[in-house]
Amino acid sequence: MTGYSVTMLGTGLIGHFYTQALHGKRNRDRVEVVYSRSPERAEEFAGQFGIPRFTTELEEAIADPETDTVLIGLPNHLHEETVELCARHGKAVLCTKPLARNAAEAKRILDTVERAGIFAGYLEDLVYTPKTLKAVKAVQAGQIGDVTWARSRETHPGPHSAWFWDAKQAGGGAIIDLGCHCTEIIRSYVGKENRPIDVMCWLDTLVHPIEAEDNAIALIRFESGAIGQFEVSWTFRGGMDLRDEVAGTEGTVWTNHFLRTGFEVFSSGEGVGYVAEKAETTSGWMFPVGDELAELGYVDMFADMFGAIDEGREPMETFYDGYVVNAIMDACYRSAENGRWEPVQLYWRGEGVGRIQPARREWDGKTLIKQEQMPDGRLKLIVKDEATGEFSEVVTEGEPVSAG
Amino acid sequence: MTGYSVTMLGTGLIGHFYTQALHGKRNRDRVEVVYSRSPERAEEFAGQFGIPRFTTELEEAIADPETDTVLIGLPNHLHEETVELCARHGKAVLCTKPLARNAAEAKRILDTVERAGIFAGYLEDLVYTPKTLKAVKAVQAGQIGDVTWARSRETHPGPHSAWFWDAKQAGGGAIIDLGCHCTEIIRSYVGKENRPIDVMCWLDTLVHPIEAEDNAIALIRFESGAIGQFEVSWTFRGGMDLRDEVAGTEGTVWTNHFLRTGFEVFSSGEGVGYVAEKAETTSGWMFPVGDELAELGYVDMFADMFGAIDEGREPMETFYDGYVVNAIMDACYRSAENGRWEPVQLYWRGEGVGRIQPARREWDGKTLIKQEQMPDGRLKLIVKDEATGEFSEVVTEGEPVSAG
Amino acid sequence: MTGYSVTMLGTGLIGHFYTQALHGKRNRDRVEVVYSRSPERAEEFAGQFGIPRFTTELEEAIADPETDTVLIGLPNHLHEETVELCARHGKAVLCTKPLARNAAEAKRILDTVERAGIFAGYLEDLVYTPKTLKAVKAVQAGQIGDVTWARSRETHPGPHSAWFWDAKQAGGGAIIDLGCHCTEIIRSYVGKENRPIDVMCWLDTLVHPIEAEDNAIALIRFESGAIGQFEVSWTFRGGMDLRDEVAGTEGTVWTNHFLRTGFEVFSSGEGVGYVAEKAETTSGWMFPVGDELAELGYVDMFADMFGAIDEGREPMETFYDGYVVNAIMDACYRSAENGRWEPVQLYWRGEGVGRIQPARREWDGKTLIKQEQMPDGRLKLIVKDEATGEFSEVVTEGEPVSAG
Amino acid sequence: MTGYSVTMLGTGLIGHFYTQALHGKRNRDRVEVVYSRSPERAEEFAGQFGIPRFTTELEEAIADPETDTVLIGLPNHLHEETVELCARHGKAVLCTKPLARNAAEAKRILDTVERAGIFAGYLEDLVYTPKTLKAVKAVQAGQIGDVTWARSRETHPGPHSAWFWDAKQAGGGAIIDLGCHCTEIIRSYVGKENRPIDVMCWLDTLVHPIEAEDNAIALIRFESGAIGQFEVSWTFRGGMDLRDEVAGTEGTVWTNHFLRTGFEVFSSGEGVGYVAEKAETTSGWMFPVGDELAELGYVDMFADMFGAIDEGREPMETFYDGYVVNAIMDACYRSAENGRWEPVQLYWRGEGVGRIQPARREWDGKTLIKQEQMPDGRLKLIVKDEATGEFSEVVTEGEPVSAG
Repeated sequence: MTGYSVTMLGTGLIGHFYTQALHGKRNRDRVEVVYSRSPERAEEFAGQFGIPRFTTELEEAIADPETDTVLIGLPNHLHEETVELCARHGKAVLCTKPLARNAAEAKRILDTVERAGIFAGYLEDLVYTPKTLKAVKAVQAGQIGDVTWARSRETHPGPHSAWFWDAKQAGGGAIIDLGCHCTEIIRSYVGKENRPIDVMCWLDTLVHPIEAEDNAIALIRFESGAIGQFEVSWTFRGGMDLRDEVAGTEGTVWTNHFLRTGFEVFSSGEGVGYVAEKAETTSGWMFPVGDELAELGYVDMFADMFGAIDEGREPMETFYDGYVVNAIMDACYRSAENGRWEPVQLYWRGEGVGRIQPARREWDGKTLIKQEQMPDGRLKLIVKDEATGEFSEVVTEGEPVSAG
Repeated sequence: MTGYSVTMLGTGLIGHFYTQALHGKRNRDRVEVVYSRSPERAEEFAGQFGIPRFTTELEEAIADPETDTVLIGLPNHLHEETVELCARHGKAVLCTKPLARNAAEAKRILDTVERAGIFAGYLEDLVYTPKTLKAVKAVQAGQIGDVTWARSRETHPGPHSAWFWDAKQAGGGAIIDLGCHCTEIIRSYVGKENRPIDVMCWLDTLVHPIEAEDNAIALIRFESGAIGQFEVSWTFRGGMDLRDEVAGTEGTVWTNHFLRTGFEVFSSGEGVGYVAEKAETTSGWMFPVGDELAELGYVDMFADMFGAIDEGREPMETFYDGYVVNAIMDACYRSAENGRWEPVQLYWRGEGVGRIQPARREWDGKTLIKQEQMPDGRLKLIVKDEATGEFSEVVTEGEPVSAG
Repeated sequence: MTGYSVTMLGTGLIGHFYTQALHGKRNRDRVEVVYSRSPERAEEFAGQFGIPRFTTELEEAIADPETDTVLIGLPNHLHEETVELCARHGKAVLCTKPLARNAAEAKRILDTVERAGIFAGYLEDLVYTPKTLKAVKAVQAGQIGDVTWARSRETHPGPHSAWFWDAKQAGGGAIIDLGCHCTEIIRSYVGKENRPIDVMCWLDTLVHPIEAEDNAIALIRFESGAIGQFEVSWTFRGGMDLRDEVAGTEGTVWTNHFLRTGFEVFSSGEGVGYVAEKAETTSGWMFPVGDELAELGYVDMFADMFGAIDEGREPMETFYDGYVVNAIMDACYRSAENGRWEPVQLYWRGEGVGRIQPARREWDGKTLIKQEQMPDGRLKLIVKDEATGEFSEVVTEGEPVSAG
Repeated sequence: MTGYSVTMLGTGLIGHFYTQALHGKRNRDRVEVVYSRSPERAEEFAGQFGIPRFTTELEEAIADPETDTVLIGLPNHLHEETVELCARHGKAVLCTKPLARNAAEAKRILDTVERAGIFAGYLEDLVYTPKTLKAVKAVQAGQIGDVTWARSRETHPGPHSAWFWDAKQAGGGAIIDLGCHCTEIIRSYVGKENRPIDVMCWLDTLVHPIEAEDNAIALIRFESGAIGQFEVSWTFRGGMDLRDEVAGTEGTVWTNHFLRTGFEVFSSGEGVGYVAEKAETTSGWMFPVGDELAELGYVDMFADMFGAIDEGREPMETFYDGYVVNAIMDACYRSAENGRWEPVQLYWRGEGVGRIQPARREWDGKTLIKQEQMPDGRLKLIVKDEATGEFSEVVTEGEPVSAG
């Protein structure tokens, strides 16, 4: 039972999260070499995590003869050239989100790994939160019927590193940073075989003195009729708000990944010590999460990635998924500019899916619109006479009409 | 200390709520006569609430010499003619939501009451929920800074009366039924003097066998730059979901009016009795509200309406507000048809408001983008050099930069 | 439809709450005269609430010829003499909680009003919160089966007025101040006809430099076998924690009256204005309630009290209830001193109730201990052979065994 | 980087949880042999988890030459003899909770492993839930000041295996089964060096037709003055209720491990599939947890145990802790029988701790009892004149008095 030997590229916040997740608990995979543009940060990072080697030479890190897998935790504009190096050296490559700054770049990256035949995993951690994994499984099992609507919301007061704020390096603002998470969560709920048709998006720069958008909302229409909705913001106050909601014809799912997870702390501020990350406050009511790495999906994400290499299968999140996400975000930016629904332009690999098709029910030759149990036990029906177009109410002693 | 004598028009669910609110607790106002198209329902309603007189003659009910105020709880397509009768008989008129089926009709209704000089109140109850009243007051006091976003969500499995489902009588589907609530809640948070500029709306009929929309989402752009967002549905499963969220430059407000209000009941189903209305279930976990009439705003709404007549002032919700709401909903339907942002066409009575203007801060001659306290007590700044356009990070021992 | 004319005794926090509740919304009852020991406070209070008359003469206030009802909002050690004055002047009397400092005093007060034949209501507001009213009704209807356990918790950082902290005036500490609420909430859930048998209590003075207890926990054993549990504290940090939990043989009830009611506000502290009472903080996450007077039960309490006078019936909370509460609290103090269960000594007016008696079920001649549905749809039973005393597990395809 | 080879004893629910946790994610430790009294269950379990060997011979399993560590997941009455076998064969031993049926048995088990010098870990999983680990760390760091009260609650509808219900095999009922968890959670919060002095306990058999208690509540008084409180029940309806609450002089902690963790699902029951374990229902509102093994502490528990062996240190939970828990539970049973506080009889290894000592503050020569900010910004103080014993209120413009 051996593990993987990893080259880590980048020493920012995401590099910390990745390495903590890899080295955590009783995990058997290890980072063997770390790369940073800054020798100080490379050395400090290596020391902090007990990593044997560090370097400021990108290709040297990738080509390291003792590692088999490369983790890309670099700014967006460096992904393409880095993936090319991985392909050249035949390494498995795991790339942070978003895959690229736009769909064209993402497509080239995808082509590169497919041509090279190397393993490629898209590190979309929030699809792997334990709640999301279990909820998606329940939805796929039919527990809430057909999905009609999926909302994914990610907002906080703004990113930690300077390059995120620079649209040239990042490729955009809050959409590129956070919308990529939301888009993939939405796709997971409506079904990845459900083609995104078109997109309507609003964005604005309301608070920060930057050019990129600091707030955006998008609607994504899927082939089945289901609607996706994401809300992203770099101006939220109160911590990090990570919530998803899903509506189906037979049920509902609500998940909250951060601010309300059943862990609540009040401190007068006269105590000492440090409670909660990203909390904006160190006194008053605070809402930490238990094991941040696990609850944000990092642990399950790497288990899937390395498990996929072990088993010779595709990971749950592939570079193709990353490409689809970029295509949807491209449509968001176009829609925001043009003020209208914009088609999602992409090479689609999925099959077609049918329209949401709820069971039609009849009552006494009329179309049953709604039925509900009244407090007195009787049944109230609303029915439509398709011949006359008339709607009427009926109260009856009978049993609910079940789907034919 | 005397109260008002009321003519109640309509005996549907809303008539029950209105009358229960009026006759509840130690209230001093009373319904004196009730009108219904059906003599049986009129009589039953009068008996249930101890109302002295009932009738099937609309004008007779309105003209009743012993009442001073008329409450309209009738289907939407009857509002216009009913308001005209109230004007003719010089009665104060309180009209249920929405004011009309569209803005043109609403405008004629508004003109009618203004010409007649009668008191007119728009019965938009959800703006009066105790949480909303207190939250709006806090927002107006500046507690969360400038509002950037307001989301109002109202969804349930569909209305109780047949006429709601018939677009001809109702004027539309879930937007007309529920979107009117959401729109006015959003306006209350962003400020009623904040002009709605344009609207982007998606709607679809996903589940029910009807022609009207059973799901819709809309974005409303206001003059200040603030964005309103509403989500309405007749296909939600799990009860009635009534939630609002507001983001401001200095804070956040979340209110939940129904499904999660700190009241939770589990029943195995082997007990007997009746717990919760609109719950979809009578066993398992259920989430009743305490005093439904109060928590849905009916009590405070009538206190404001009759208090306004007492004091010779306008109520918080006027027919002009109802007209603005119809104008916004008209733009929603146009947008949904045209697939693009549509301007809100209305006679605007407000003054102009300025753009959201967060304080700009400087640090060492550079624009301060973001600052946050680090766990070790130091301050991390992200700054932009406006000359070069470069973003960089600074870690310092200093104090946070406050707004100049 | 006339209302009541009230003499208000006391101008402390509770006097404010009572008067706000009485004068709120469209209520028809009014305070006509207010008494305070301090002329300044009396005058200020009268001015604030539009009360025609004020006085520093207790008997003058009570004897006021234009009032019919006296509200006692005075410190505990003044209740007895005040009730006597009410009896002498034949006024209806409503007395704040606790009725007295101990059961002997409470018994004399009870005797006084019963001898005089005046209407007497015990102002235990927390039994009247809308959630509690609805939950008690559901429990009485059998929705959760037989009650086995009721927990009532009231904690905050300590009372607002000086006299509460002085055990001589108050008769005790947190038990007398808060335990009286909890005790009556517990009695409402287990049933008022369910005799409190004995009590086990822990108390201590852990934080404040006072002699009275600032923390206490008590268990109350009832005739049916049900157990009551209260937790009171004057040292809680984070606001006011008001929660009740009830377990029954067929269900569960959880109510939260203050800190988590579906209303959440975050403020950076750079906004202006005032959000939430009793919040301990004015920035960070705060949890206001919507309509504090309604949610704390004041509105429904007075509706019951005056409704009872109107209808010639007893109010839900009588002086006898107040006396029972004092008897239980007396037993708490004795138990805390003696370190053992202490009997509740009281003149009991109720009938006897039976022991909690869950249905016994059999399976194949054995006693059924537990049954649960397994994920595969089969039924798992745990049964006991009464002959041998052996426990065993059975997995079967059959239907759940229902109560015979 | 090698892992441990484990002998698993027992194939019940706890054996499943343990093995799933060990074999989960990218963990490097493995079960090599499993023992069950039933050959069918041993074989099935081995097949399910890919375990190379299975046996019905206890000593053979323990003596297996290729394993280094034994996990005891057997009924309570078998722990003593099993630990003796582990000692004889020099294996590291990890024993499920409770360590024994009573303190005398636990002491003999403790002596056995200390005499043999083998590694011994007490598998108290709930102390290792991610929320508890982080909360305990915050409390130890002083974030909430001195702990005054810790409540731990564990209730559900009753255990899954027959032997739990048999007091002879288990050593008791709900206390032995669940109270052991709660006791150790409480000790973790008040500090393990804080000696448990005495105990007051109520228990009863209210619902199930068994002799063991199905409900119990206990108070545990610690040397510092802090009070522990546990509530256990086998008759709770609604799932599994796992909540802890901690009060300190400067703050509060609330954790919810199961029923309200930010994951909510509604299903009409017409969908298909399986959502949530231990939910009592498969339709209506359900509250699953994300990753049950992680959220119940199994993952972190084994990481600590094997990490401790690696590092030659003691694990967080030792057999001595298990013995202390048994001593406290013994006192619970004695107290329930005698109706009074009972001392905890145990060999105490800790040092003494001091009494909770909040800072005393003065204002103008008087003892400051309480201070609070009023809405108008002024400060309200309650002070006591120690000379006269009088309490009074002061309102001032000044700053809050800080601890001297």
